Amino acid sequence: MRVELLTVGDELLRGDTVNGNAGWLGRRLTEAGVQVVRGVVVPDETETIIKALQEALERADAVIVTGGLGGTVDDVTRDALARAAGVGLHRDPALEARLRDRAATRGVPLLESALRMADVPDGARLLPNPAGTAPGLRVTLPGGVAYAVPGVPHEMRAIVEESVLPELGGTPVPAHVLRTATVWESVVAGRLAPVEALPGVRVAYYPSAGEVRVRIEADAEEGLAEAAEMARKLLGGAVYAEEDVALDRVVHRLLAGRNATVAVAESLTGGLLGAELTGMPGSSATFLGGVVVYATPLKHLLLGVPADLLAAHGAVHPDVAAAMAAGVRERLGASYGLAVTGVAGPDPQDGQPVGTVHVAVADSGAHPRVKSVRLPVNGDGERARGPIRRMTVVHALDLLRRHLLTLESCERWSVTAGDGEEPG
Amino acid sequence: MRVELLTVGDELLRGDTVNGNAGWLGRRLTEAGVQVVRGVVVPDETETIIKALQEALERADAVIVTGGLGGTVDDVTRDALARAAGVGLHRDPALEARLRDRAATRGVPLLESALRMADVPDGARLLPNPAGTAPGLRVTLPGGVAYAVPGVPHEMRAIVEESVLPELGGTPVPAHVLRTATVWESVVAGRLAPVEALPGVRVAYYPSAGEVRVRIEADAEEGLAEAAEMARKLLGGAVYAEEDVALDRVVHRLLAGRNATVAVAESLTGGLLGAELTGMPGSSATFLGGVVVYATPLKHLLLGVPADLLAAHGAVHPDVAAAMAAGVRERLGASYGLAVTGVAGPDPQDGQPVGTVHVAVADSGAHPRVKSVRLPVNGDGERARGPIRRMTVVHALDLLRRHLLTLESCERWSVTAGDGEEPG
Repeated sequence: MRVELLTVGDELLRGDTVNGNAGWLGRRLTEAGVQVVRGVVVPDETETIIKALQEALERADAVIVTGGLGGTVDDVTRDALARAAGVGLHRDPALEARLRDRAATRGVPLLESALRMADVPDGARLLPNPAGTAPGLRVTLPGGVAYAVPGVPHEMRAIVEESVLPELGGTPVPAHVLRTATVWESVVAGRLAPVEALPGVRVAYYPSAGEVRVRIEADAEEGLAEAAEMARKLLGGAVYAEEDVALDRVVHRLLAGRNATVAVAESLTGGLLGAELTGMPGSSATFLGGVVVYATPLKHLLLGVPADLLAAHGAVHPDVAAAMAAGVRERLGASYGLAVTGVAGPDPQDGQPVGTVHVAVADSGAHPRVKSVRLPVNGDGERARGPIRRMTVVHALDLLRRHLLTLESCERWSVTAGDGEEPG
Repeated sequence: MRVELLTVGDELLRGDTVNGNAGWLGRRLTEAGVQVVRGVVVPDETETIIKALQEALERADAVIVTGGLGGTVDDVTRDALARAAGVGLHRDPALEARLRDRAATRGVPLLESALRMADVPDGARLLPNPAGTAPGLRVTLPGGVAYAVPGVPHEMRAIVEESVLPELGGTPVPAHVLRTATVWESVVAGRLAPVEALPGVRVAYYPSAGEVRVRIEADAEEGLAEAAEMARKLLGGAVYAEEDVALDRVVHRLLAGRNATVAVAESLTGGLLGAELTGMPGSSATFLGGVVVYATPLKHLLLGVPADLLAAHGAVHPDVAAAMAAGVRERLGASYGLAVTGVAGPDPQDGQPVGTVHVAVADSGAHPRVKSVRLPVNGDGERARGPIRRMTVVHALDLLRRHLLTLESCERWSVTAGDGEEPG
C-alpha cells in the first residue's frame, strides 16, 4: 500500500508553521507497514489542490490530505475534493445543526462562511472527529482514495487512528524499541553491528540530546525476538526502557517503587532538571522540589557547600556536586538528593572548560556518587548552551536511575546472600 | 520570483525527522519577497529526484533542493542534478584534498563513498559552505535554476543566506514586528482590525504559549510606519518588543539597566521559569537563582510562607504567591523576587480549578504585586499541563517586565514632579 501525504495551507509554505503533522503521519504509517512515497505542500488554492490530488493518485493508492477543512473562506479542500471526484457538495443537516448548537453554547455568532463545515461531497463517507468539530472525509477519486482530515494536530491524529489507519491495511512490521541514555549514537550503532548483520533485520537510530532511541525491525516475530535479545545484551545498562516511555517517568517509577522522594540542586541547568521531573501528572508523589543555586555564593548559603571548598576549587568540581546533593537532600527532607554543576558556556568558568559537568546523587550513606563528564561543544559557544544543559539533565536522571537499580540489585542480593550470587 | 522547495530524504517520509528546514526556508524566502509555491519531499531515489526537479521547474523559476549531498551511498542528489542537466560529474581536486585533510586531522578513515562529496556536475557553480564540508551547488536546468544545499540545518542556512538569497532577487517586503505577551490572539487581532483595514497592509499573527508575535507588512515604507504607529497605540503595554527578541532577554535588559537582580520561587512550573531566565549567556549578571517549592510544606520551610496561611487557603492563593515572592527575594538577597503558584492539572488542587495561577513580584516595598489569571485548559487534563506551565512562565516574566517599566516611569515622573505630568 503506497500512500502520499498532501498538506494544504499557505501558512506552511510561508514557514509560519512547521509541518509536524506530516512527521507524525510519516512515522505512524511507516510503523503500520504503509509506505509513504511522497509529501507535498500546496497553497489554499482549489485548482492547485485538485491537480495535486490527481497527480498523487497517479503515483500512489491513497492520499491523506490535511488542512483546508476549517470554516473560513480560505478553506477550500471540500470544494477541491468534490470537483476532483466529479460530484457536487450537499449540506448535511445533522452537521449544520451541531455547528449551530456549538456556537449557541459558546455564545458566539456563527458566520456564514463557517457553515461550509457542514458541506459534504456527494458520496463521501464522514470520518467521525472525536476531538473537534469538522469530520474527516473519505472520497473515492479516479485513481484511488483520498482521506481528508483537519489540520489541527490532535484532531488529525484521532481521526487517522480511528478511521484511516485501520482501512489502509498495512501489515504492522514487527518492531522493538530500546531507549538508551548517555551513550553516543556512533557508539550505540557500533555495539549493535552484530544485530544489524542479522538477516531480515533493520536497525534505526533516533538520537536526541543525550539519548538514543533504537528501533529494531524484523521480517518475522522470531527474528525480532532474537535481535532484541542480542541488542539488550550488547547495550546492557545503557538501556533505560524497552518501550516508548520517557526517562523521567522511569525514574519516577523506580522512586515510587521504593516509596522514595528526590530533591534537586541545580546550577547550569537553571531549573530544567526540576521542570523535567514535574512534567508528569502525579510527580508530587516522588518529587519534593529543589534549589537553583545559579550564583556561586548560594551554593554555600542555601545548601551548606563549604565556603573554603568553593574558594579553593570554584563551583565546578565533583566535591561541590557531592556537597550540593547531600545538602539539598538534607534540607528538603528527601530520600535522595540529585545535583548538577558545570559549564554551559560560552565562556569557561572557574578555570573549567565549556562542557565540563559533574552530577551527583546522595542517599542516606556517607558518600554521594559522582559522575564527571565532558560534553561536546557543537558549533559556537552560544549555540552550545542549550544542548549542554539538556544533556546534563539526561546524565543526572540516568545517574539517579542507575543508582536506584544498583540499590535494588544489592537489596535482592543481600536477601539471598550466602548463595554465592553476585549483585546483578 | 516563484520558488519551490524540494527536500530529499527517506527519513523525512518515515517521520524520523520533521521538516524544519522547509519551515525556515519558507519564512526566510517569504520575508525576502520570494513566493514559495510548493514544497515536495521525495525519497533518496535518483530517478524520483530527477522527475521532481523537472516538474518543479515547470511550475516555478527556481528550486531549492535540500538533502542528499552527504557522503553515503544514499546521497544521490549530485547524480540526479547532473542527469537532469544532461551533464556528467567530475571530481574536484581541491574538494577532494580538503576531504582527505579533514579526515586526517580527525584521525578517522575516509571511506570511498565519502569521496562523492568532491563530485561536481559539469558547469555547476560551487556555493561555499562556511559551516561544514560539502559545498552547495547551483545548476542550470531546462526550465530554471536548481540550488542544492546540505540538509544539516545550520549549514543550509549559512549557504542560503550567503549564496542563494542574494541571487533570487526578491524585493524584501517592508515589515514591522511587534511581540506581545499574555493577550489572546483573538483579542490582539480584534484590537488590530483598524490596522488590517489600512490599504496595502497585511497583518499576520504567530501565537505561541502566552505570546503573540505580530508581523505587519505594507506595500511601501510610509504605509508601514503609519500601520506600525497605529498598532503600537492599539496594543499599548501588551507589546514587549518591536523586534525579534525573546521576553527573557527583555527582562534581563531591564534588570541590567537598574543594576538589579532577580530570584524566583516556583511551584507548578517546577523550574521552567529559572530555566527560561538562564537560557541567555551572561544571565548570571541579573539572575541569582531560585527555589522550586513543589511540595506545599517547602513553601513554609524554605520561604517562610506562614503555615497558617497555607493551612487556611492551601498553596494556590494570591497571598501565598506574594509571600513566596517576598521570601525568595529576602533569602537569596535579590533586588526582586518573582513567584508563581497555581494548578497545572490534570486534577484541581486545594479546591482550585485547573488553570488557576497567581504570579507575584516583590521589591523593597511592603506589598508584592500579584496578578491572578485563569488559564484555559485545552484538551484533556494531561495534555493541558505543558501549555499551562509555559503560559505561567510568560505571565510571570511579563509581570516583572511591567513592574520594572512602571518603576522606571515613576522614577522619571518623580524627577519631573510638579510639571503636572502623569506616570506614563
